[in-house]
Amino acid sequence: MVRTVEQIIQTQGPGDAVDVTGEVARAVAASGVTSGVVTVFVKGSTAGFTTIEFESGVVADLDCAFEKVAPRQGEYQHHLRWGDDNGSAHVKAGIVGPSLTVPFRDGQLLLGTWQQITLLEFDTRPRTRRYVVQIVGD
Amino acid sequence: MVRTVEQIIQTQGPGDAVDVTGEVARAVAASGVTSGVVTVFVKGSTAGFTTIEFESGVVADLDCAFEKVAPRQGEYQHHLRWGDDNGSAHVKAGIVGPSLTVPFRDGQLLLGTWQQITLLEFDTRPRTRRYVVQIVGD
Amino acid sequence: MVRTVEQIIQTQGPGDAVDVTGEVARAVAASGVTSGVVTVFVKGSTAGFTTIEFESGVVADLDCAFEKVAPRQGEYQHHLRWGDDNGSAHVKAGIVGPSLTVPFRDGQLLLGTWQQITLLEFDTRPRTRRYVVQIVGD
Repeated sequence: MVRTVEQIIQTQGPGDAVDVTGEVARAVAASGVTSGVVTVFVKGSTAGFTTIEFESGVVADLDCAFEKVAPRQGEYQHHLRWGDDNGSAHVKAGIVGPSLTVPFRDGQLLLGTWQQITLLEFDTRPRTRRYVVQIVGD
Repeated sequence: MVRTVEQIIQTQGPGDAVDVTGEVARAVAASGVTSGVVTVFVKGSTAGFTTIEFESGVVADLDCAFEKVAPRQGEYQHHLRWGDDNGSAHVKAGIVGPSLTVPFRDGQLLLGTWQQITLLEFDTRPRTRRYVVQIVGD
Repeated sequence: MVRTVEQIIQTQGPGDAVDVTGEVARAVAASGVTSGVVTVFVKGSTAGFTTIEFESGVVADLDCAFEKVAPRQGEYQHHLRWGDDNGSAHVKAGIVGPSLTVPFRDGQLLLGTWQQITLLEFDTRPRTRRYVVQIVGD
């Protein structure tokens, strides 16, 4: 069985992170699938998905580490070629990746206690984000 | 068909890596599923899954690179807010991600010859790690 | 339903990136599966899969960021132990990971408009790359 849902959220701009665990858990519950995998996938090249302990300290620390690797104020070939200002976001999103796959059983996501499914916003401005929640299982 | 197994392993602390390819291959063989995907997913926010050529040099080199991005001795907002000492581990695990999906066919994992499914321990102390092995296929 | 295809491509060496979106879309179309997930997985420990806006500026910017974390000219334990010169590639590939899972529906990959499935070559020489495209769905 395959169930596919699209979700929309609003982000607050660079360094923002959004905990979508509740939305994903509800999509799994609504699907009628009891065991399987749920894949979350963000459409777009300047955001990513991972899991973190969702609290503002970790969110700030992650932003700080990504800034070391690809600072927002840096120089990027992407800017020269396209007149954009978000080369840093493309790099960060490429490293993290757009998707995450989480197993569930008996209708429950098999996450740790302090582990939330988190969308990371890397772009240089607030964005409306569309992501896919797809459930494959029995 | 969906099969879900939970595994427990012990890690030796920061920078440790554990090759779980054998356990995953055995879970696939025991499942009776011949073709599909196996997802490994670590419960917790301070470890991750990837593939590497599993040898002690690569393990040390990876640790060294992650230390550049998020040094264990650095300052983290997570420490200030929670009195923890493992902010570096949260950052590293967020970058790598908790899960990995590997295809298999005829009961065999489709890995390269020098490519092992590896749990990376980022936490600042040895941990007992629980991870899920979930098989979806025919 | 599970369908598994292996593809071969040639890369141009360190920092190269190959857009495989067309091949993956064709594999999905040929599979007869209408909804599900497609997993791409590169066999080998010195390349990775992610999505990017595939244009030469982003490709160069990503290479530059990875060089900060694990420069090709750096010193690696992997070199000392194996006489290799590609320790940087092992580190970069471990961070990105070998696989990517993309949902599709009505036979269409649910990618963003400016988002391509991209193999990143990290090795220090051109390589012939084998990757698996595996489709699981209805």
